[in-house]
Amino acid sequence: MIQFDLKSYLKEKRHNVDSALDAFLPQPEGFSAPLLEAMRYSVMAGGKRLRPILALAASEAVDGVQSEVMPAACALELIHTYSLIHDDLPAMDDDDLRRGVPTCHVAFGEAIAILAGDGLLTYAFEILARGADANNLNSQKTLKVIHVLAKAAGITGMVGGQTVDVIMENKEINSEQLAYIHKHKTGALIQASVEIGAIMGGGSREQLSALAEYGAALGLAFQIVDDLLDIEGDEEIMGKPVGSDIKKNKATYPALFGITKSREKAQEYIDKALSSLDSFDNKAEPLRAIANYVIQRNR
Amino acid sequence: MIQFDLKSYLKEKRHNVDSALDAFLPQPEGFSAPLLEAMRYSVMAGGKRLRPILALAASEAVDGVQSEVMPAACALELIHTYSLIHDDLPAMDDDDLRRGVPTCHVAFGEAIAILAGDGLLTYAFEILARGADANNLNSQKTLKVIHVLAKAAGITGMVGGQTVDVIMENKEINSEQLAYIHKHKTGALIQASVEIGAIMGGGSREQLSALAEYGAALGLAFQIVDDLLDIEGDEEIMGKPVGSDIKKNKATYPALFGITKSREKAQEYIDKALSSLDSFDNKAEPLRAIANYVIQRNR
Repeated sequence: MIQFDLKSYLKEKRHNVDSALDAFLPQPEGFSAPLLEAMRYSVMAGGKRLRPILALAASEAVDGVQSEVMPAACALELIHTYSLIHDDLPAMDDDDLRRGVPTCHVAFGEAIAILAGDGLLTYAFEILARGADANNLNSQKTLKVIHVLAKAAGITGMVGGQTVDVIMENKEINSEQLAYIHKHKTGALIQASVEIGAIMGGGSREQLSALAEYGAALGLAFQIVDDLLDIEGDEEIMGKPVGSDIKKNKATYPALFGITKSREKAQEYIDKALSSLDSFDNKAEPLRAIANYVIQRNR
Repeated sequence: MIQFDLKSYLKEKRHNVDSALDAFLPQPEGFSAPLLEAMRYSVMAGGKRLRPILALAASEAVDGVQSEVMPAACALELIHTYSLIHDDLPAMDDDDLRRGVPTCHVAFGEAIAILAGDGLLTYAFEILARGADANNLNSQKTLKVIHVLAKAAGITGMVGGQTVDVIMENKEINSEQLAYIHKHKTGALIQASVEIGAIMGGGSREQLSALAEYGAALGLAFQIVDDLLDIEGDEEIMGKPVGSDIKKNKATYPALFGITKSREKAQEYIDKALSSLDSFDNKAEPLRAIANYVIQRNR
């Protein structure tokens, strides 16, 4: 078999996702133009598009159709972007730089940034519900996707994780609390991305369960690598300052377990993610390559 | 016909809604307990439950089943409460008091208040998607409700209206801009409440269209009365300071058109709302009574 070319794959999918996002996001016009401009600014500032690409790749693994997954893939990125905007706010992490450009509240003011986040979160559900046509099968799948997405983004997922992250800032943290933050703040939405792609792609119950396992392990590895990059990363490549976790006395994996142990743990999760794909054929090659990429990434 | 007893009706429905909200909201436990506590604090602080009651009353008008509408009714109140929490934030209206108690950010801090709002908004969609069972008809109706709700709450509705309200603070405003704010900030979700009740209740296309008209007119009347109460209201009855719009130099209907003209305009909208119900029988009596209540209310 020819070696799978992940770089080209990511480039192509990122391009597809960017086009779809551009088409979904309203043009900044009318009285509320600043809101629409702020939403567009943050979404189009770039980013790896990891979550939408995971949804597309999971759909491919179960023989799904890309155009059917695209609204859900974009919804994932809108929700990811909203979470970054709100996390960056002065009352939260108070970050000035994101993806190499000023954060939303620095560029548009705090009120508009809060509203842009609210707008993106709501719009994610709007494009999902809009995408479902009179086809009953699609309605069932879309409702399931909305349910998975809301759980992963909300109080039992991302919002819950961010809450504990905020509460524990400047406090002693134990490994159980750190695991909670990792699993909920980042892991939940990454796992949901894979699940959502598999649902919209029409995967079987067994496939869904294997891909959920893949997504869960990948999400945990991703967050450990994120913590490592905050220590070892290159500021210019990452587009944001390194060392900010330490500066804010934030709980991280390397702070609790050391760099070597953290690297090992990330690799363990990646191995677990890969073995969850054992029963899949080469249509899961993109998911396999993404798992290896996540641990080698430098931004 | 015996005079419809609105007071008892509102009391009974408010009780039903409060019980359902209490059951939907998770108990504050686990690492993210402060988040769940803040959500519960703001939702259970009281309020008229106007939006859920409108949904229930609209469902009754089309012969719907209350238990089928209740998740959507609660979702409306969760979204209404999230919007109050975010609007009250220091970066927005900076209000300390709401429904007679300290606002969420005063009680729980700004970060938790932002997250509680995010959590409530996301949870609204979660309970809607969760409520849909394997029944195809229900799936179709639920997806339609999610679509209507997201549009009314998001950039083309409430978030859009709040944006323009924020942008225009301390600026000269014309009647077109004021109409935009009223229609989007408050009107959209009130109209959606009526529509959502009618959809879940299984109303016909004609009924939906008449009820949407009712909801639109009611929403506009409601906001004008709100503006009037900020000038003429009783602080103790309302549970929040009066005169805050003037203090913040906010655009209001009476500021632009005077008190007398505003009262007249509100009554015009109420008349329009009532005439939209002409083709309905006495099952629409609650909706008629609510319209008359909206213009006579003192909080």
